Amino acid sequence: MFALELVFAISIISLGFAGYLAWFVLKQETGTPKMRTISDAIKEGAEAFLKRQYVTISALAIVLAAVIFIGYSALGDPQRAWYTSVSFIFGAFCSALAGIIGMFISVRTNIRTAAASTKSAANALKIALRGGAVSGLTIVAMSLLGVSIIFYALGANPTETPFMMVGFGFGASFVALFAQLGGGIYTKAADVGADLVGKVEAGIPEDDPRNPAVIADLVGDNVGDCAGRGADLFESTAAENIGAMILGVALYPVFGISGILFPLVARAFGLIASIIGIMAVRAKEDEDPMNALNRGYFVTSILAAIFFYVATMWMLGNVWFFYAGLTGIILSIAFVYITQYYTESRYRPVKEIAEASKTGPATNILSGFSVGLECTGLPIIAISIALILAYKFGEWSGVAYGGLYGTAIATMGMLATAAYILAMDTFGPIADNAGGIIEMSGAPAAVRKKTDRLDAVGNTTKALTKGYAIGSAALAAFLLFSAYMGDVAKLTGKPFGAVDIAKVDVFIGAMLGAMLIFVFSAFAIRAVSKTAQYVITEVRRQFKIPGIMEGRVKPDYAKCVDITTTGALKNMVLPGLLAVGFPVLVGVLLKAEAMAAFLMVGTIAGVLLATLMNNGGGAWDNAKKYIESGMYGGKGSEAHKAAVVGDTVGDPFKDTAGPSLHVLIKLLSTITLVLAPLFI
Amino acid sequence: MFALELVFAISIISLGFAGYLAWFVLKQETGTPKMRTISDAIKEGAEAFLKRQYVTISALAIVLAAVIFIGYSALGDPQRAWYTSVSFIFGAFCSALAGIIGMFISVRTNIRTAAASTKSAANALKIALRGGAVSGLTIVAMSLLGVSIIFYALGANPTETPFMMVGFGFGASFVALFAQLGGGIYTKAADVGADLVGKVEAGIPEDDPRNPAVIADLVGDNVGDCAGRGADLFESTAAENIGAMILGVALYPVFGISGILFPLVARAFGLIASIIGIMAVRAKEDEDPMNALNRGYFVTSILAAIFFYVATMWMLGNVWFFYAGLTGIILSIAFVYITQYYTESRYRPVKEIAEASKTGPATNILSGFSVGLECTGLPIIAISIALILAYKFGEWSGVAYGGLYGTAIATMGMLATAAYILAMDTFGPIADNAGGIIEMSGAPAAVRKKTDRLDAVGNTTKALTKGYAIGSAALAAFLLFSAYMGDVAKLTGKPFGAVDIAKVDVFIGAMLGAMLIFVFSAFAIRAVSKTAQYVITEVRRQFKIPGIMEGRVKPDYAKCVDITTTGALKNMVLPGLLAVGFPVLVGVLLKAEAMAAFLMVGTIAGVLLATLMNNGGGAWDNAKKYIESGMYGGKGSEAHKAAVVGDTVGDPFKDTAGPSLHVLIKLLSTITLVLAPLFI
Repeated sequence: MFALELVFAISIISLGFAGYLAWFVLKQETGTPKMRTISDAIKEGAEAFLKRQYVTISALAIVLAAVIFIGYSALGDPQRAWYTSVSFIFGAFCSALAGIIGMFISVRTNIRTAAASTKSAANALKIALRGGAVSGLTIVAMSLLGVSIIFYALGANPTETPFMMVGFGFGASFVALFAQLGGGIYTKAADVGADLVGKVEAGIPEDDPRNPAVIADLVGDNVGDCAGRGADLFESTAAENIGAMILGVALYPVFGISGILFPLVARAFGLIASIIGIMAVRAKEDEDPMNALNRGYFVTSILAAIFFYVATMWMLGNVWFFYAGLTGIILSIAFVYITQYYTESRYRPVKEIAEASKTGPATNILSGFSVGLECTGLPIIAISIALILAYKFGEWSGVAYGGLYGTAIATMGMLATAAYILAMDTFGPIADNAGGIIEMSGAPAAVRKKTDRLDAVGNTTKALTKGYAIGSAALAAFLLFSAYMGDVAKLTGKPFGAVDIAKVDVFIGAMLGAMLIFVFSAFAIRAVSKTAQYVITEVRRQFKIPGIMEGRVKPDYAKCVDITTTGALKNMVLPGLLAVGFPVLVGVLLKAEAMAAFLMVGTIAGVLLATLMNNGGGAWDNAKKYIESGMYGGKGSEAHKAAVVGDTVGDPFKDTAGPSLHVLIKLLSTITLVLAPLFI
Repeated sequence: MFALELVFAISIISLGFAGYLAWFVLKQETGTPKMRTISDAIKEGAEAFLKRQYVTISALAIVLAAVIFIGYSALGDPQRAWYTSVSFIFGAFCSALAGIIGMFISVRTNIRTAAASTKSAANALKIALRGGAVSGLTIVAMSLLGVSIIFYALGANPTETPFMMVGFGFGASFVALFAQLGGGIYTKAADVGADLVGKVEAGIPEDDPRNPAVIADLVGDNVGDCAGRGADLFESTAAENIGAMILGVALYPVFGISGILFPLVARAFGLIASIIGIMAVRAKEDEDPMNALNRGYFVTSILAAIFFYVATMWMLGNVWFFYAGLTGIILSIAFVYITQYYTESRYRPVKEIAEASKTGPATNILSGFSVGLECTGLPIIAISIALILAYKFGEWSGVAYGGLYGTAIATMGMLATAAYILAMDTFGPIADNAGGIIEMSGAPAAVRKKTDRLDAVGNTTKALTKGYAIGSAALAAFLLFSAYMGDVAKLTGKPFGAVDIAKVDVFIGAMLGAMLIFVFSAFAIRAVSKTAQYVITEVRRQFKIPGIMEGRVKPDYAKCVDITTTGALKNMVLPGLLAVGFPVLVGVLLKAEAMAAFLMVGTIAGVLLATLMNNGGGAWDNAKKYIESGMYGGKGSEAHKAAVVGDTVGDPFKDTAGPSLHVLIKLLSTITLVLAPLFI
């Protein structure tokens, strides 16, 4: 299997290259002692959180693995019991490891970016992006390597193996859910807490060193945006690989082993495209950093398309599948533009929110919420067109099941640039942290201006990644549905037939799936509110200590970090258990066909609500920034106060509930795949 | 057909009884000349709006009728062309007439309620409820009469007729959509405009006569809550009658004509139960008025259950169908309790929002929004259980298609108490108006206290009706799906098979259906914002006129009424056209099966989003009232200011977008039924 060896080789090379980038970043200067003190505090806080978080997640994962093992053994399927529970643990481990490595580098890149920005903005951009790329490359390569190792280990029966390794995907999504939930709750509780007491009540600026929650806030950027999103996309790539490979099994008579291994090869080629794209980013000193990042993205996209053509012709020998893949690549570009339209202040939606702020917080909220509702339209239409096209291209290939395989290949196309997108995403918290370090260390205004610009670009890239993540989740979902139906068909020994939502139990399954999305979001938002309350109480307590507000006494940052950690870990459990437990309950009660509808309509509701929350939140954030740039009275005006309210509301939308919904959608897919035998 | 004659008789008797109630109300005292001046202004404004609104709607309806006629003629089906377009116009006419009659009485009941409250709170309650009952009885009786007349006119072929009269339902829902949208935009634009400039900027109390928008605000209560909701429930009962009759056709071999006429008989019996319930309401002078209304509701429910038993045993001769109907009656009671839990200040959710207001508007909004998301859970579970039970009861009846007929009968059970619920609903705007008239006419504080209590009860009953409307829409939807599928099967001459959302085009239909719900809501909310801007500008202009703020110069109320009218009518067109046009486009492009998924998943998304908006809005409103009752600093405190923001956000949620979604769901059902031939 030359293809598999090639995938191994490219994964190892990519990990090596990530190592080189890490070395490159770590050899950079670390700035003044004052900057190092701040950076060390962030590092400690982030690492302490991650440690405690993974202890909690490990405990939950081990319990679940045991349940899976016992369950399958009781069902008289010891082989599935072993394979599923071991690959579950392995998937969980790889996902956690990818998160830890990414975080290790990003909390070390922030200070180096800050130090570089005292001299050159272009250099700071380069360091931040390369630090982010360590995450991006590691995550994609690890996911590829994990799947390949399982495939290699179980290789005796390549048509059985993909079914056996769904446990890997489930393990990955299980960790991803808690990583994203815990990280998302942490980051927004700290942010809301710091802002409400610091900015609103006490009237001190953001990232002011007198605010005891300021370090917790900076820690939050890492654990939420970096570790959380990393786990999210690790899971995306893993689940999508597995889904596509299962479909490849159905096509075994047509393509042989190539059809099964193609997704891995396509992803591996995408890694190379991303590496070249990352190295191609070179900003000029006075250029908008976003332009430099966009150039890199286009290099990656074009290379990905070319490589995709090569891979398709080599392994599948059918140009129609290349068109399907190209559809996915173009869809990802469309998502990037749509997200920009709804979240950047150059366009109508954000301007509308800013203008509505003039009449106070209520109209700001209404305007932002209607932008959130509206912005679900274009992405859904884009996905619909892409699905139809990919399906038609697949059908025109003349291959049996070609339509479905076409949609699978579109997903691969969309995820081909994943490593680059992830690098841009992790760039966000690094730039944000660098700005915080500069602000807290009292650097001159000119330097701050440089990091502010990087920070603003980081906000955009974070929004783009979320759009991309939800788009690929939607596309991959369709693939995973069919994998689930194939699994059930295999277990029952007869074709699945249809998912007929005109049947009463199937319709109920559909309703309950959509409902889970709403109730889960409620729990996620409430978890942020609860945790923020702890932070608010603590910051208020410390502000009363004489000397802190005057800057003479150093606040107890560690206390805030600790309180946020404990709160976030405690409050992530309820939504997490709901997400895992409710589908199982519905599946056991209503059985396989209703469960399929649960999954599909839950996915639709999840895509819509996540898009609403991600883009609505992003638009509120940038409407505030737009006013801060001097519109409608600028900072301190009534319009600004109203916009701050919108921004605060948008925070848990875009950084907790929205991203957690991405993971939830995929968790639903993997959970149904793993537990399918229970639903028969 | 004795049953049909009985339905005729009961409908006529109910209309006669509504006439008696109208006479009873109109003979009451009309208070002081000052009160009459205010009431006359409201009356004029409401009637002017209704007149202009129905001119616009008529124009749109005539165009659509012509399109339907030409379309079916072109398809070579002249019979369907005639029947559908004529019954469409007839349905639109009946719906409009029901709205006009209801409004005629309610704008005359408000002043009589106000006058009565100067003497006796118990008497005021009685007058307001009886005024509301004129609407309730007229709407249900008209819908019954309309369907019966068509059935009688086309009677030659009872198994064909129900298919022919789907036009009636479509006409009703078409008018209902625009009535609810236009009225909803009007009422909230006036409310938000009056509050933002009056209460927030100028700091004068609600309903203060110096506020130029105050009459527009009072007019809004009538055109939104009264005319809008009336059209909504007219449509519910009509569509549900037709859906159930179509199903009765499938059961013709089992029950004969009885199966087709049963829904009409069940509804007619429900009318009698409601009349007795309304007459049973007698409050004691110092009792909570809600208790008196609840007593009447229980009388109605118990009578409805008994009558249902009689009707079932007489016409269907199978006790299992009675159990199915009872399931519907119990579901409606469950909805009343669930809605109360989420929107009354006695319970955890509203208290939570009030408490979150202490830390400002942002936490108030987050808390309210998470309550809105969470409150979708119990209703969906309740509907699921009711659907399963009704289906099982139907199956156990031993009749072919019994399961589906069981769900139809559950819907009839739920709608049996519709007239009473509608009377309680219209009670709301009457009590609200009476309070406004008392406030503006400067009556003593003791009288105000009485009307305030009635007003608070009115808020609760309005929330209950919305819960009830969405619950019955969800239940009826399942029935209408099967009617649509039966229609398509009849047209193509082969069984529909399944709505298989695992097919790519069907899945896309499902996604687009859910998306329409989100985008439509965005447009509805934006329409309120836009119209409110006109009002805000006008009120600010008038406040600058010397003498107005000092109370020496009377503001130009008529100008505000006129501006709101023009704005609401202009801004209802875009969401309205989207709601009608998009389903047609999708159906034509993706065909019948995808359209079924569009309808079903759109309904699910609509139920969820409407529940979120209705209950979230109600909870925000009552959290504000809870604080005004003295909690967390009471009126004027920071917590109160934050709660006012939440209330303002909740207004277009609960009174524009939410209720419009009810109608949209049903419009989707009737539009697919009418246009089914285009989708083949």
